[in-house]
Amino acid sequence: MEIISVKNCPITKALEVLGGKWKLRIIYHIVEDKPVRYGELRRYIPEISEKMLLQELRSLVENKILEKRSYLENTLRVEYTLTEKGKEVLPLIKMLAQIGMNFLGE
Amino acid sequence: MEIISVKNCPITKALEVLGGKWKLRIIYHIVEDKPVRYGELRRYIPEISEKMLLQELRSLVENKILEKRSYLENTLRVEYTLTEKGKEVLPLIKMLAQIGMNFLGE
Repeated sequence: MEIISVKNCPITKALEVLGGKWKLRIIYHIVEDKPVRYGELRRYIPEISEKMLLQELRSLVENKILEKRSYLENTLRVEYTLTEKGKEVLPLIKMLAQIGMNFLGE
Repeated sequence: MEIISVKNCPITKALEVLGGKWKLRIIYHIVEDKPVRYGELRRYIPEISEKMLLQELRSLVENKILEKRSYLENTLRVEYTLTEKGKEVLPLIKMLAQIGMNFLGE
């Protein structure tokens, strides 16, 4: 196997976009094809701080994994959906979840 | 989608074992079914420090993803191979690499 520099390593690139403690968990909660509200995400992942959730969502939107829509009703409603690029990640999420279930089952 | 505590979240559990900047890259370099020497891993991933590589390898061995074999010849030779549990992760690595290549190609 040849030496691949960090810049060209596909695993490193994928982890740049999807890595860290929270991003895959966030996508995991938007897995069904319907918009998820910011407030719902905070309830699904109670351990994440508001600041971190906003930061990870901003990164996922910048990397075009998620799309953000804001609606000004009596209060500002913000929703997130998977982009087409984001949907390409779903098989990975499902496989990772299966592996995690295997580990949990040990 | 219901609320899953961190303790029972399959994504969190999978990332506990496989997460971080280096573990998936290390496994990516042991993907072919033959032992890889410690020295080879250092050459494949020049950016990782000796201390970090040893730490990540120890974690992967403790979590039974890798098996470590040591041979005392004129010098100590240490090799790592994938366990059966480790081989279950290969489809994830290949999928992650494909996603990373798509991102690199943008």
